[in-house]
Amino acid sequence: MSVDPQEGYDKVFDNVLRLRIMTILMVNDSYDFTSFKDLLQVTDGNLASHLRQLETADYLQVVKSFAGRKPLTTYSATASGKKAFQDHLDFLEALIQKSKV
Amino acid sequence: MSVDPQEGYDKVFDNVLRLRIMTILMVNDSYDFTSFKDLLQVTDGNLASHLRQLETADYLQVVKSFAGRKPLTTYSATASGKKAFQDHLDFLEALIQKSKV
Repeated sequence: MSVDPQEGYDKVFDNVLRLRIMTILMVNDSYDFTSFKDLLQVTDGNLASHLRQLETADYLQVVKSFAGRKPLTTYSATASGKKAFQDHLDFLEALIQKSKV
Repeated sequence: MSVDPQEGYDKVFDNVLRLRIMTILMVNDSYDFTSFKDLLQVTDGNLASHLRQLETADYLQVVKSFAGRKPLTTYSATASGKKAFQDHLDFLEALIQKSKV
């Protein structure tokens, strides 16, 4: 049986912003656009692009609601997103161990 | 003072093959092309391209020598490559900790 040595590594996460967005969504049930922007210090366009890529991969879902009368868009990790991210981190953790002499 | 939250993260390493090549060079003083190929199960072209990118970043150095009468090309991590990789792993390690609820 051949074992894929890259098992767990997910190209969706080989970008630091997508990594950081998913980290935030692992520990917060939901997070809104402005809070992401404040925390990550990125432009609207850049943030929107990475959120969209995570949504396209089905790793996060977008919920549109209202905060009082103001529209509010929040993002939550999906179950498959959490699973994929955990597998990715397990891969990285194993790699970190391997790199220690 | 503004702190770069991405500090330590290095785009050179946001590819799984370059990550794995550097991991190998962290624990082996030198490694040759064929051994990389066997271990990583990649094509010559793909491997050569990623080795070249690491060389361009000054993260590895190429040594051409002979094994008996056969030419032998080996690769070693540079001091700056080891430092950059360690910083990158430290960043990832911190991220993994943060993602744990």
